[in-house]
Amino acid sequence: MTLLAENPTPATRAVEAPVKTKRIALVAAKGTLDQAYPPFILATTAASLGWEAGIYFTFYGLDIIHKKRSRRLKVASLANPSGPVQLPNLLGAIPGATAAATAVMNKWMRDAKMPPISEFVEMAQGLGVKFFACSTSMGVMGVKETDLIDGCLIAGAAAFLDYAATAEVQLFI
Amino acid sequence: MTLLAENPTPATRAVEAPVKTKRIALVAAKGTLDQAYPPFILATTAASLGWEAGIYFTFYGLDIIHKKRSRRLKVASLANPSGPVQLPNLLGAIPGATAAATAVMNKWMRDAKMPPISEFVEMAQGLGVKFFACSTSMGVMGVKETDLIDGCLIAGAAAFLDYAATAEVQLFI
Amino acid sequence: MTLLAENPTPATRAVEAPVKTKRIALVAAKGTLDQAYPPFILATTAASLGWEAGIYFTFYGLDIIHKKRSRRLKVASLANPSGPVQLPNLLGAIPGATAAATAVMNKWMRDAKMPPISEFVEMAQGLGVKFFACSTSMGVMGVKETDLIDGCLIAGAAAFLDYAATAEVQLFI
Repeated sequence: MTLLAENPTPATRAVEAPVKTKRIALVAAKGTLDQAYPPFILATTAASLGWEAGIYFTFYGLDIIHKKRSRRLKVASLANPSGPVQLPNLLGAIPGATAAATAVMNKWMRDAKMPPISEFVEMAQGLGVKFFACSTSMGVMGVKETDLIDGCLIAGAAAFLDYAATAEVQLFI
Repeated sequence: MTLLAENPTPATRAVEAPVKTKRIALVAAKGTLDQAYPPFILATTAASLGWEAGIYFTFYGLDIIHKKRSRRLKVASLANPSGPVQLPNLLGAIPGATAAATAVMNKWMRDAKMPPISEFVEMAQGLGVKFFACSTSMGVMGVKETDLIDGCLIAGAAAFLDYAATAEVQLFI
Repeated sequence: MTLLAENPTPATRAVEAPVKTKRIALVAAKGTLDQAYPPFILATTAASLGWEAGIYFTFYGLDIIHKKRSRRLKVASLANPSGPVQLPNLLGAIPGATAAATAVMNKWMRDAKMPPISEFVEMAQGLGVKFFACSTSMGVMGVKETDLIDGCLIAGAAAFLDYAATAEVQLFI
């Protein structure tokens, strides 16, 4: 028995101190195309490493899982001095500048073989990433459950905190 | 005694492994109306669940606890493609567009029975949420202690890190 | 031996439960001048407290460690209702408003004796802060290793998650 304690077999060690499955809890709070990528890159990477992963979609971030709005995520050109299209402000304000910045970002992503957000959403759900839709934001922004893509859990901040409390990594994006 | 160890009463177990009070450490770094809500929703939810909660107000986030500026938090319409008022950029630049976006956001919040930020501040302080005002930002932005609402602790980044190190959840908003 | 177990000398205690070095894992995802400061203030503070510190530069945040772009980080005036230059939107759109906001921010920093970002970069590296450059973002934005300052580790999201998993504090800035 002393021997066992000093030199346990893997099975014994597992019983004594089971390895916790790692968890990442992300908040997706922005609804622009550029800010929609980081939660999905992090969540799908974590899930493919065997972590539990959950994304809490809140405020503008709800747009990402909104059936209609998710197809129209944009990047601002104006007031985005490090964004993909660098225009003087006056030109940035002309009609079409946001569309141009969005087109450039989409091209960057395609050229780098990054899937569009809609594919990332499917990939994440396929990998078991949990999608939480913030119930408070839904109330504030007038979003109904039927407006959202399938497979979202409607959850308040308390449910998110409960999920995040045992996560190794939590990030507000 | 062996029996006790194997099957402890709750009191004994508590002595052996006291349950740690959970803690959330938030950084509020933005000074816009929409970005002011998440720290308060999370902090007051955590506090009402029995967690310790602290918010570190830094950079533009100092505006939230600034006596005068806190009453004038705004939402940008321009360059906010997922914001409450969707205008073409040229119209977004006309005088009044920021005011319009701010008015819409305030109406959303009222309709959803969300308290205004000033009430959230009082509610959070009543629940024991700690308010840290970033001393470095105060220096940079020329904010004096008397400019801030009562009950803020002036603290440097080291004090925040010390507070956050034992927090279950830390988020930079 | 019983005595030792009950009342260990510090050396013995250290062997039994070594104190873990604290770690902070930061994501720098913004490329504006104002958003470049928080990761460096937090990382250098943590490092000088004896923590391990790492910054993962991703998306626009890559600009901060880009040899050429790091010298031209800017602050937007437009659509930044809590920024350093408060102009009506139409004036904010005139050529020069971004330059004016950037100049004001730089003056704030100088007046408060805050080092410019270039010095913060050197200081952080001198303190042993690890710089991770997001390989995915480099592909998306067409940034080559030779575009980056010396001493950056090219790393994917999996490497960052591995680093962050044992960090006491993780923040996405």
